[in-house]
Amino acid sequence: MDKYQIKTDLALERRESYSGTEVEIPGVAIDEKIYKGVKTTRVNIFTEEGSELMGKPMGKYITLEMEQEAIYEDSKNITNVLSKEIKKLIPKDVDGSILVVGLGNRDVTPDALGPKVAGELNISRHLIDNGGVCAVVPGVMAQSGMESAEMVKGIVDEIGIKCVIAIDSLAARSVRRLCNTIQLTDTGITPGSGVGNYRSGLNKDTINVPVIAIGVPMVVDAATIVLDTMDALIKVLSENTVFNNIKDTIDKFDDNDKYQLVKELLEPQIGTLYVTPKDIDENVVLMGKIVSKAINKATRGNNISTF
Amino acid sequence: MDKYQIKTDLALERRESYSGTEVEIPGVAIDEKIYKGVKTTRVNIFTEEGSELMGKPMGKYITLEMEQEAIYEDSKNITNVLSKEIKKLIPKDVDGSILVVGLGNRDVTPDALGPKVAGELNISRHLIDNGGVCAVVPGVMAQSGMESAEMVKGIVDEIGIKCVIAIDSLAARSVRRLCNTIQLTDTGITPGSGVGNYRSGLNKDTINVPVIAIGVPMVVDAATIVLDTMDALIKVLSENTVFNNIKDTIDKFDDNDKYQLVKELLEPQIGTLYVTPKDIDENVVLMGKIVSKAINKATRGNNISTF
Amino acid sequence: MDKYQIKTDLALERRESYSGTEVEIPGVAIDEKIYKGVKTTRVNIFTEEGSELMGKPMGKYITLEMEQEAIYEDSKNITNVLSKEIKKLIPKDVDGSILVVGLGNRDVTPDALGPKVAGELNISRHLIDNGGVCAVVPGVMAQSGMESAEMVKGIVDEIGIKCVIAIDSLAARSVRRLCNTIQLTDTGITPGSGVGNYRSGLNKDTINVPVIAIGVPMVVDAATIVLDTMDALIKVLSENTVFNNIKDTIDKFDDNDKYQLVKELLEPQIGTLYVTPKDIDENVVLMGKIVSKAINKATRGNNISTF
Amino acid sequence: MDKYQIKTDLALERRESYSGTEVEIPGVAIDEKIYKGVKTTRVNIFTEEGSELMGKPMGKYITLEMEQEAIYEDSKNITNVLSKEIKKLIPKDVDGSILVVGLGNRDVTPDALGPKVAGELNISRHLIDNGGVCAVVPGVMAQSGMESAEMVKGIVDEIGIKCVIAIDSLAARSVRRLCNTIQLTDTGITPGSGVGNYRSGLNKDTINVPVIAIGVPMVVDAATIVLDTMDALIKVLSENTVFNNIKDTIDKFDDNDKYQLVKELLEPQIGTLYVTPKDIDENVVLMGKIVSKAINKATRGNNISTF
Repeated sequence: MDKYQIKTDLALERRESYSGTEVEIPGVAIDEKIYKGVKTTRVNIFTEEGSELMGKPMGKYITLEMEQEAIYEDSKNITNVLSKEIKKLIPKDVDGSILVVGLGNRDVTPDALGPKVAGELNISRHLIDNGGVCAVVPGVMAQSGMESAEMVKGIVDEIGIKCVIAIDSLAARSVRRLCNTIQLTDTGITPGSGVGNYRSGLNKDTINVPVIAIGVPMVVDAATIVLDTMDALIKVLSENTVFNNIKDTIDKFDDNDKYQLVKELLEPQIGTLYVTPKDIDENVVLMGKIVSKAINKATRGNNISTF
Repeated sequence: MDKYQIKTDLALERRESYSGTEVEIPGVAIDEKIYKGVKTTRVNIFTEEGSELMGKPMGKYITLEMEQEAIYEDSKNITNVLSKEIKKLIPKDVDGSILVVGLGNRDVTPDALGPKVAGELNISRHLIDNGGVCAVVPGVMAQSGMESAEMVKGIVDEIGIKCVIAIDSLAARSVRRLCNTIQLTDTGITPGSGVGNYRSGLNKDTINVPVIAIGVPMVVDAATIVLDTMDALIKVLSENTVFNNIKDTIDKFDDNDKYQLVKELLEPQIGTLYVTPKDIDENVVLMGKIVSKAINKATRGNNISTF
Repeated sequence: MDKYQIKTDLALERRESYSGTEVEIPGVAIDEKIYKGVKTTRVNIFTEEGSELMGKPMGKYITLEMEQEAIYEDSKNITNVLSKEIKKLIPKDVDGSILVVGLGNRDVTPDALGPKVAGELNISRHLIDNGGVCAVVPGVMAQSGMESAEMVKGIVDEIGIKCVIAIDSLAARSVRRLCNTIQLTDTGITPGSGVGNYRSGLNKDTINVPVIAIGVPMVVDAATIVLDTMDALIKVLSENTVFNNIKDTIDKFDDNDKYQLVKELLEPQIGTLYVTPKDIDENVVLMGKIVSKAINKATRGNNISTF
Repeated sequence: MDKYQIKTDLALERRESYSGTEVEIPGVAIDEKIYKGVKTTRVNIFTEEGSELMGKPMGKYITLEMEQEAIYEDSKNITNVLSKEIKKLIPKDVDGSILVVGLGNRDVTPDALGPKVAGELNISRHLIDNGGVCAVVPGVMAQSGMESAEMVKGIVDEIGIKCVIAIDSLAARSVRRLCNTIQLTDTGITPGSGVGNYRSGLNKDTINVPVIAIGVPMVVDAATIVLDTMDALIKVLSENTVFNNIKDTIDKFDDNDKYQLVKELLEPQIGTLYVTPKDIDENVVLMGKIVSKAINKATRGNNISTF
């Protein structure tokens, strides 16, 4: 992966960066469906080539997009849709508890989704033999001194775990996706992803059990905001004939080149900044409730031995 | 004031926007001093003309700038300097309590400075006759349904108040000022200022007692980040002779024109976004302690009747 | 009122202290009703004599008692019942906003009901002319340096207020009432009531507008626990003939005498202690949601001018 | 251990329950010292007999007691004394990181000491090879679904740990010890101890590395309050000759018998209640700072390999 590939944790947005050309991406299957105001997009990356082109591990990526009003007024419907998708990803024929990992920093509003969700779960492992739900909030590295993956692996090895559900705040490419999109994947957490840019992955390779990741975009990279504005500016300028040559020249660069340029111009400050909506506090609470309720619903009944 | 004047709550930065021309600004006196690693700049706006040129009310603006390391390692020194400046602004020959107003939203990290400071004060009005310190955290309008100024005026009218000290998170023009600058002023809170863009002012005109405002920049306007990057980009491009005409043309615009252009391109999303450092949670706690300790020190002894 | 009258903020419990004699209390009317698992008791104190006997101001006291399971499983029903009772107490033919006052200390779990409720309201005064709902969280005296009544009076005088709804954590006489009882009254907050023992009242007399108080018992007085145990102990001892005279002698004292004795023995430490359930954090969140939803429902539509 | 042995997590208080007889306890050595207003008591349990008599595991128990004013005004001195005691207990000749475990429930004020301390540590394991400090806040069983010991064992097994420092809120026997006493021990956390009554121990036996436990008493058992008052009551009554026989009869019971009686009378409610000071929020913050600073000081330099 390029040092400066445009930052997005959404497979959906990675897919869109190819949409101008409208060609199919080899090894990647897409499926869209709209039901009761929730648009569900399934991106399935099924070959190594597809994985490389998308800059994401092979696996399933399910994205739910909803209208802002639906979040306020029909959260029950969203919870139901999300719950069904979570249920499909939980292994059926394996015994053990489900461990929910609330990633992120509870003290930084846009990074607090994971801790918020963990705090609203129906915890039951201590009441149920070889089943139920348990949870951990590892904190970020500056708080714990550990990679979340290390902490989770230790816990998974100590107790009988069927699968991990990791909750995290994500970074999106586009401002209009903030706080109204939920991504599920069976590929876990990839290094470099999330608001906190995890250094090591949290997935089946690192902790030996399946990892379902659920994320909601809460911030955008400052550089993408700059890039978008510049594109708009150049479009405006190029309508003036004097500047025709700007557009021609700029058009020779592809998006990643332009992004790299902006990144370099913004460095070093850019690494230390994020852009987030002003009503982020409300949104984190709202999305936290939707995600926790969906997990509670999807894991109800994880107490019946499969033997 | 222009609809799109570059957003900064710091008089210091407003002053700097004229520094390229290096002329004196009529009606504005500047004084700088560095002492033990803290740079103190006094901007005194003493005529209506100066006020108009600076886009700020007439009065004193004292800015303390410090090295990031000093904040961690020599916070006592900063507290002392700040405490002395606060003390100078508190009216001497008036009786009554001092009301500290912790402005902002305690649930949004970069806007939580005011509530944090209010929570660490030595409160004493209930112990002292006609003196002492009291405090209120009004919340933002979406939480209270009131302008902070309305709530404060009601309280001030009900009890005997000598002066108000209003604490607020500010917006800066420049990323490098975030979390390491403290501004004091005797002009109170101006409409449109702060992270929350107060609709009505909190100053002697609105509440009939002197208002000292203490603020720390915690966010920058998304548009200024774009603007800065564009400037850097254009500089780079113009080194290429093909683009000489860009720089010439762009140079014809002044900063406010360019800012207006960027604002328009970013609208409507820009009004709903802010840019903030990733370690903002630590910084709010740190600066909150410095400001609360300085107020505690400056107000110690507000219990001796002046009769 | 005696210095050592048994502490309870519930009119219901004050009434019960007379129930042994099973006589009617002059000037006090009682009415009970059970509907869908919620027991509603109306205590109406309508004469000065009744007020003196009950140790509570004249007015209406409505108590809702519910099964612990109902709180978890049928909170919607409780919300509806509570909402209707609130609506009945709000003045109909008066114009202006409704001010909700979240009393108590947000940092002390059993005293945080008021701030929790205030944080979940649908705030609308800033959107509606001469109507809507606004809110304030005054903090306790050690945080604000002011009586809550002073702060509220200031705000009420400044803006047009139709009535105040004050939310508070209460002290109960009996452990089994904790966290499952809601009391509403049109008499406001009485001096000495609440977990924090308010020094001055918050009622029509002090702030000139009607005050509806809604409270949930969250703590019991340490002394009542001692008293109850002692009673049980003496009953056990007196079954042994050697101690017959204890019961006889103790029976000569009435409850308030015994309480006074225990209070004196426990002083000075007793004033600084409270007794609270171990799962108080969950209960405060749960009851906070029920109360805030009921207020939201009862005040919906406070935007239609009555002229 | 009896079902109803008087609850105290302080070895000091267990020792005092024998002090009436003023005999030495076999297998238990005591040493007291007062220095700069801090009274340090060392209880060393060095035989199995001593362990049984004290109802505590064999090991060292160091208790620091200070005046309430000293906590406010000379916290630096307390931090220094505590830091030295912690340093003595950390193994010298072993390599690895130190894991601080912040036990308890962050949402319940008197049980939040552990999480508060963990949040103020200088975390360094991620910066230092085979050394430094790391931290985890496991949450209580209802939040995590796991015994804290399970979670900690998993983490300890996964990464190289030299020793664990476990921080916890304690239960004291006496109200006057609340919030002004710190106990350190090299025996870790015993089952049944703490505000939360841990079901399984967190000590060398369960996690295979040395466990230092640091605790501050934040609550007292409701039954001990009753017991103390009853004792005082009986003393008062027995001054009346009519009741002489009460005192004589009661004196035949020892403290544990009386405690058992009270417990039985209070059951079942007693298991679900705790008694705590009204200013507990301030005290938790204050003691949290003292403990975290002492750990930071004692562990500074855990980065020099011992090879």
